Amino acid sequence: MAGGVGGAKLAAGLQHAVGDALTVVVNTGDDFEHLGLHISPDLDTVMFTLGGVANKSQGWGLEGETWNFIAQLERLDGPAWFRLGDKDIANHVLRTSRLADGHSLSRVTKELCAAYGVRAKLLPMSDDPVRTIVHSGKLAIPFQEYFVKLQCGPRVDRLEFRGADTARMNELLGSIAPGSLNAVVFCPSNPYLSIDPILSISGFSEWLRRLGAPVVAVSPIVAGTAIKGPAAKIMRELGHEPSAKTVAAHYRGIIDGLLIDSSDSELQSEIQALGIKVRVTNTVMKSDADRITLAEESLRFAREVAKR
Amino acid sequence: MAGGVGGAKLAAGLQHAVGDALTVVVNTGDDFEHLGLHISPDLDTVMFTLGGVANKSQGWGLEGETWNFIAQLERLDGPAWFRLGDKDIANHVLRTSRLADGHSLSRVTKELCAAYGVRAKLLPMSDDPVRTIVHSGKLAIPFQEYFVKLQCGPRVDRLEFRGADTARMNELLGSIAPGSLNAVVFCPSNPYLSIDPILSISGFSEWLRRLGAPVVAVSPIVAGTAIKGPAAKIMRELGHEPSAKTVAAHYRGIIDGLLIDSSDSELQSEIQALGIKVRVTNTVMKSDADRITLAEESLRFAREVAKR
Repeated sequence: MAGGVGGAKLAAGLQHAVGDALTVVVNTGDDFEHLGLHISPDLDTVMFTLGGVANKSQGWGLEGETWNFIAQLERLDGPAWFRLGDKDIANHVLRTSRLADGHSLSRVTKELCAAYGVRAKLLPMSDDPVRTIVHSGKLAIPFQEYFVKLQCGPRVDRLEFRGADTARMNELLGSIAPGSLNAVVFCPSNPYLSIDPILSISGFSEWLRRLGAPVVAVSPIVAGTAIKGPAAKIMRELGHEPSAKTVAAHYRGIIDGLLIDSSDSELQSEIQALGIKVRVTNTVMKSDADRITLAEESLRFAREVAKR
Repeated sequence: MAGGVGGAKLAAGLQHAVGDALTVVVNTGDDFEHLGLHISPDLDTVMFTLGGVANKSQGWGLEGETWNFIAQLERLDGPAWFRLGDKDIANHVLRTSRLADGHSLSRVTKELCAAYGVRAKLLPMSDDPVRTIVHSGKLAIPFQEYFVKLQCGPRVDRLEFRGADTARMNELLGSIAPGSLNAVVFCPSNPYLSIDPILSISGFSEWLRRLGAPVVAVSPIVAGTAIKGPAAKIMRELGHEPSAKTVAAHYRGIIDGLLIDSSDSELQSEIQALGIKVRVTNTVMKSDADRITLAEESLRFAREVAKR
């Protein structure tokens, strides 16, 4: 299960480890309609990363991207706050067009993944729309406006996953037989913004339990801060101390084990006291090798958790 | 009244001559929906040319254009036969988005023209959809497929302007008071593909007559061939000899005068025999100066025609 950048990195390591045996369930709460285009930021990030075409220096989008569209849009006084790259738009236009033709987001994602040479199976958490809304005071802010336009500035009082109560979880998940999975891994994505939308889909948590697979998570919080994004800021705003222990408490009852970074080793016993197994390791992925090592460690940990 | 490239050139000359007193009525029979985008090729060509940002070497599109979108679309097995430039897409995306918000094509065109610094008033012939269909044998081919995908290959048996019988002519044309115009100029656009769609709009010809302005046309056929595009080929396919005289016969009863090229001076008396005044001049626009000279000559000719 993954959201954007951090999740995509571990997913790439897992794809290296198990190839097409990997299914990645991706958050679509970040999806939005912009300029008439259906944009799926997390699906794209995971797809580009697993297809080996992600822009590593920028941290999002495609490698070798150019920006003539957005410069022209700006010149035409169009809404240029969401930086659409020239190559990137091909995904959005094609996705939007295929969706308008009546195909599901899963189907379109499968087609795009084939074109990018992604070996793993990427599944949007749902083919129905779920939209993350940030409630801040009296404001209800659509996610991308919060994330991109407002640069995560507003205080988060509450998160809403609009549509999650009626959205059906991706029907292809139903074809995974209980007992058939070696592991479920929550990638080090933002618990509130990336993993919670998936868990909020009606029936998802029950399905996860019925699967009977060991569930492990990788903490996105290392040494009290987030590797990327607003996870630590949001934790504070929701009244929690930013720490791997807060991640553990948040996932309590859902995960069996948590991988935390070596710099957080002193939290081990407190997390274990919550009934969650702990693996202390290097969780910061700087290189491709780091991704693979962490992926293998996650799978090893899941196997051990399953035995106990 | 203008279609694409040839029409846009003379329109640019006319804009130079009369500035914002110029209204250009533009063919929208070429418009189509492609990949969910509303594309108006003739409006764009006229807009780019009058805004001074047209790609002169290529003959269409924007100057300084790049092609990363279409290369990526091709990579994704998307329909890449219609070459959308990276900058160009900004127009299409913005137009489509504004139309989806309920604004008229006229309104959106006005906004885009303002951004491009176009001084003349550009009016789509209608805000309602009219679609040119090429009938060839048993095939009914949407215009852009005929023009771009099939490179004007199929024989034209009949042209249909689907929707023209119910489309309302641009309502802003109604605000032009009879007697208030010095001239109506049919630019040297394809009579069948660019001017006829405009004339086919229900009530347009009657409105033109009521205006009481001298109507002159510039022949797009010079020395038996078209400067650009399939006009001569279509003339032959429809059973006519490609010549300025055929243009005259086609516009008979609608125009008062025809400007023909010096190389066609021997056709003068035959055209006059059709009851149409003739001005022999250089009609081939190679330079900006040529456009201005031809524009001024057209207006002078219209004034003379009005007196006679």
